[in-house]
Amino acid sequence: MSGAGRPPGRTGRRPGASDTRARVLQAARTSFGDRGFDGATIRDVAARAGVDPALVHHYFGSKQQLFVAAMEFPLDLPTMVLRLLEGPRDRLGERFVRLVLEFWETPAVRPLLLGVIRSATTDPVAAAMLRQLLAEGPFLALARAIDQPDAALRATLAGSQLIGLALARYVVAVEPLASAPPEVLVRALAPTLQRYFTGDLADAGRPASPTEAGGSPT
Amino acid sequence: MSGAGRPPGRTGRRPGASDTRARVLQAARTSFGDRGFDGATIRDVAARAGVDPALVHHYFGSKQQLFVAAMEFPLDLPTMVLRLLEGPRDRLGERFVRLVLEFWETPAVRPLLLGVIRSATTDPVAAAMLRQLLAEGPFLALARAIDQPDAALRATLAGSQLIGLALARYVVAVEPLASAPPEVLVRALAPTLQRYFTGDLADAGRPASPTEAGGSPT
Repeated sequence: MSGAGRPPGRTGRRPGASDTRARVLQAARTSFGDRGFDGATIRDVAARAGVDPALVHHYFGSKQQLFVAAMEFPLDLPTMVLRLLEGPRDRLGERFVRLVLEFWETPAVRPLLLGVIRSATTDPVAAAMLRQLLAEGPFLALARAIDQPDAALRATLAGSQLIGLALARYVVAVEPLASAPPEVLVRALAPTLQRYFTGDLADAGRPASPTEAGGSPT
Repeated sequence: MSGAGRPPGRTGRRPGASDTRARVLQAARTSFGDRGFDGATIRDVAARAGVDPALVHHYFGSKQQLFVAAMEFPLDLPTMVLRLLEGPRDRLGERFVRLVLEFWETPAVRPLLLGVIRSATTDPVAAAMLRQLLAEGPFLALARAIDQPDAALRATLAGSQLIGLALARYVVAVEPLASAPPEVLVRALAPTLQRYFTGDLADAGRPASPTEAGGSPT
């Protein structure tokens, strides 16, 4: 387009270029969010952004490269984790669920979440991104900052509950989860996240009532 | 094929027909499980079953009709729910998680689970099936059998945790969840399910320690 082999970025040589890139990325988020990786096409992204498909290829290369660029999470994770660690430790789960729900309820973020989930179920690159988010993202940073064993298991358990909630609430939209007010979900889910991060993960075998303690194990 | 407009079923007129149907359904489960609804094709299913694609069309109609037939859950749900209700009520969560994991670990069932999850994220019919499973399946039957308010919310919360676990463990295969022994997961998840089915869903706002009870609410 410009004769250069690489996208010009913010060189000032093409004043509209970075706007165009941003528009293409936003269109890509919407397209991947609506259709998942397999269903989305460069042609559809270009149409939504009002540009030529060749320009999308020129800027981002393959559909997979476009996906990776579009799905970059707009989060300052270290700062987020530090903030979550402030306040009473026994309400960490509540703060975390509230923050995650606020994030998901943001219109600019929703397509990103949907794009990752819809694509991760069939596309290996998207699956790797979700795997990394669950295994190395804010979940692990938070679990590591708390002085408890099994940080990786705690992080992925927390991730499994939240990704399952996202799938049920936003992707398949099952009621009453889909239209439950965030505060209802915060109350319902906070103890789950609290236990995954700070609780005893091996306590299921203990009977809740002492009268059963002498009973025969099955 | 046989000249009749409908599949012959078990009329005895075509001895191999019900075997062939079963083989096509099994091939469809594998194909949908590997590729999701969008990625699977009648041609691929036919190749895996060693039959002509026209035969698959003849028996099952469209890809969507084949999907619905292939994804029928091989479960006697009422009996399953009755069995779960036997035994101590405060270990219902443990029994439920154990049963679900045993079910998923069965080789014949795994592709079914993967097929539904991989397809539900992009295909409306598959999404409706997953929505129905979460909203009306064993989760709701169990939640209703327990004398607690908010059965639908309880059922879908339980479903969200289990579908998230399936996504994390089997679809994106994040460690250490992917290779955790079922018993570790039973212990980690049982209290979550127990609380969703029988606990207080609105208790997150209560500080765990009485010393905070007089603190100002945020």
